[in-house]
Amino acid sequence: MKLLITGACGFIGSKVSSVLCNEASVTTIDNCRTGYVSNMPRNVRLIRGNCQDPDIIMQLENENFDAILHIAGQSSGEISFEDPIYDLQTNTQSTLMLLDYALKNRCNTFIYASTMSVYGDGHIAPVLEGDSLNPSSFYAIGKIASEQYLKLYSSYGLRTISLRLFNVYGPGQNMKNMKQGMLSIYLSQLVNNGKIVVKGSPQRFRDFVHIKDVTNAFHKALSIEKEGYSCFNIGSGNKKSINEIIEMMKVITEKNFPVEYTAGTPGDMHGIVANIEKANNELNWQPNIDFEIGFTEFINWGFKKE
Amino acid sequence: MKLLITGACGFIGSKVSSVLCNEASVTTIDNCRTGYVSNMPRNVRLIRGNCQDPDIIMQLENENFDAILHIAGQSSGEISFEDPIYDLQTNTQSTLMLLDYALKNRCNTFIYASTMSVYGDGHIAPVLEGDSLNPSSFYAIGKIASEQYLKLYSSYGLRTISLRLFNVYGPGQNMKNMKQGMLSIYLSQLVNNGKIVVKGSPQRFRDFVHIKDVTNAFHKALSIEKEGYSCFNIGSGNKKSINEIIEMMKVITEKNFPVEYTAGTPGDMHGIVANIEKANNELNWQPNIDFEIGFTEFINWGFKKE
Repeated sequence: MKLLITGACGFIGSKVSSVLCNEASVTTIDNCRTGYVSNMPRNVRLIRGNCQDPDIIMQLENENFDAILHIAGQSSGEISFEDPIYDLQTNTQSTLMLLDYALKNRCNTFIYASTMSVYGDGHIAPVLEGDSLNPSSFYAIGKIASEQYLKLYSSYGLRTISLRLFNVYGPGQNMKNMKQGMLSIYLSQLVNNGKIVVKGSPQRFRDFVHIKDVTNAFHKALSIEKEGYSCFNIGSGNKKSINEIIEMMKVITEKNFPVEYTAGTPGDMHGIVANIEKANNELNWQPNIDFEIGFTEFINWGFKKE
Repeated sequence: MKLLITGACGFIGSKVSSVLCNEASVTTIDNCRTGYVSNMPRNVRLIRGNCQDPDIIMQLENENFDAILHIAGQSSGEISFEDPIYDLQTNTQSTLMLLDYALKNRCNTFIYASTMSVYGDGHIAPVLEGDSLNPSSFYAIGKIASEQYLKLYSSYGLRTISLRLFNVYGPGQNMKNMKQGMLSIYLSQLVNNGKIVVKGSPQRFRDFVHIKDVTNAFHKALSIEKEGYSCFNIGSGNKKSINEIIEMMKVITEKNFPVEYTAGTPGDMHGIVANIEKANNELNWQPNIDFEIGFTEFINWGFKKE
């Protein structure tokens, strides 16, 4: 099997590649803007550049990929406000170019790393894939357009799958990126400064899903047999508030560290939680890592790393 | 009053500029790709280029526009399939750049030429602005993203208004563009070839709205007082099937011309019709041109033009 997995120098892309390169030949495109070559599994072939760059796509000529997993991209809602044009190009134009490539080169399966951000706020019950979309960041708007492109290309015969990732966490997260990943930001602050600064309400909540469960979802998506376009929530189905997270961190680290509260960041969501029945039924996927266990392991990793 | 009206060399942009340059100083950006400089009212200042080009936007420095009316762009669902990247750049990236410009230069009002295509098919009743969006073309996907950008920028204090134009027709339409404008395509075929070729089902239907009613909607939108983001259907509220159109053309021209039926075009919609109560109530707008009168005048214009 030959796979193109974009973003293999980043957190999610590197972990997905690491699992899949055991059973496939993997090529990646990565601009190494927020990722590191050192993250990448050794037997992955790297094309360094942007997925939205025609010259980079041209380097894929004569490859016969069985599937494309498009994971590269700017992945922070907050950062998308700093350069909306870059966000549109890296997250949306890139998808369009890779879909076009897939179609022209008979690569039949296209899996996309989408996000829970597409839902926006205002959902009380656990969100379903068919629920309304109220994007509150440039990031979310670009991801919605990408999903709609996937749907359109499915009408040409491509099998396209969008995985709406909730808050992914786990060992390997970039502890230097202080604008991406709620748990890694808190952990990094705690490790480096001995205190945590919470931007926004401590009543906000998230649905945290472990990176191993996420890589497993990509793996399962690869062998889906249903034709056309599919879209799945990839979360835990459980919500944790910031307050709960902080309390857990105090218990796990056995430290009563100080916590400061400041203003929120643009486009930040109050919180939503996933309904994961569809992924369970159609993808035969379910999260296996209990949050307390996964979070404890993650915190230990963070302290050991420094 | 100082206005930036993009696309003043095109059909809609030229007509809107023609009305508004009586009461304002008008600058336009137009790449003249599908429009003509000869369409443009004489006292409009032309900057020739693409709205998504930073060098073009830079030429607007030190202007103090009271409002931006963003009408330029690739306007055909069918053509969007030929070059989806260009469509994304001209219809979506351009909107993002102009919104950014508006915000930074304290231009408080931004009016956008959106489209009924955002709804897609599957709506039985006349569509309401809050109805679900099922885009079936690259064009529609890009227009939805643009609308979502408008909504996001309204949270910064910009007044943003999206006019979802239904099938606009009338004198001045580009009779040489055979992929844009259902009535102008049929009229052009009839004038030049003495017959009409219908691409797709003759049971499809459209909601036709006269260009004068559309320019009036832009005019009214300019003086809207409501803050934040607004979105309005600009249609007639009545549907006409292709069969009805052909019959009307035979009666109006008093000719029993031949009609051929061929396969449809990609992304084409079966049909939707507008509910225009919101524009009526909040914009104080309603269509004034009766379709039989407007269509007769348009057909006479088409024959006289040749």
